[in-house]
Amino acid sequence: MPVQIQIATPADIPELVELLCCLFEQEAEFKPDRAAQVRGLERILNDPAVGSLLLARQGGRALGMVNLLYTISTALGERVALLEDMVVLPEARNGGTGSLLLQAAIDHARAVGCRRITLLTDGDNLPAQRFYQRHGFSASSMLPMRLVLTH
Amino acid sequence: MPVQIQIATPADIPELVELLCCLFEQEAEFKPDRAAQVRGLERILNDPAVGSLLLARQGGRALGMVNLLYTISTALGERVALLEDMVVLPEARNGGTGSLLLQAAIDHARAVGCRRITLLTDGDNLPAQRFYQRHGFSASSMLPMRLVLTH
Repeated sequence: MPVQIQIATPADIPELVELLCCLFEQEAEFKPDRAAQVRGLERILNDPAVGSLLLARQGGRALGMVNLLYTISTALGERVALLEDMVVLPEARNGGTGSLLLQAAIDHARAVGCRRITLLTDGDNLPAQRFYQRHGFSASSMLPMRLVLTH
Repeated sequence: MPVQIQIATPADIPELVELLCCLFEQEAEFKPDRAAQVRGLERILNDPAVGSLLLARQGGRALGMVNLLYTISTALGERVALLEDMVVLPEARNGGTGSLLLQAAIDHARAVGCRRITLLTDGDNLPAQRFYQRHGFSASSMLPMRLVLTH
């Protein structure tokens, strides 16, 4: 059965949460938190200006997702995207689903006027880096720095 | 005369453009383009949900700026900020203006509900990295990757 890529809607939240939990279990800097994942997904899905979530389905089953978040570049003077939360279920990997999702995300970003996509991948995840390079992404010489804010 | 930090408005665009041009002349990955800078600044200043620009002034003169762009984290389920376009005019450096601006940006991000600030700094700009570290930022092990989209 073919894999199809769809723009996610609020009805897809339960499956998106499962995919995010799968992702955050394997990432170095994050831990799963279902309530937080639901809140974040709702805030994106309730306002198309914030971003778009793409979902890969095969025969109705969700196999993977990717998240495009929109912002503005003062350097380019145009909309740009952050690509986050790229994940395919372990049992569905190496079948081209990730490439379908990423290519759909690139096409979608271009269609909504984005002039650049930036992502952050684990520095030691060479397979992920090769995957993004195959789709045209280049490693940047910039260093990400982060500050966690507590209230 | 004391340096004061203000939230920028559309009336500040001419001075913000000059500061951005000063920044992009010194950055590895960008080049100045005044028309693009005006467009980008207008898109941020015309919609508070997109971001906030902070301006440092001394006796009416603009000395520096910083840009907070807002998005949503599915990991945290909350608003987070990207910090970009941090610049102080060369002749106004080493007087604490950068620290005032960065601390005001951190306070503002917290006040508008951001749970994390992420920035990208040049990988070989050690003074910048030390500056951000002094204000609580930690280097991430993640690698930025970028794809430029042409239409």
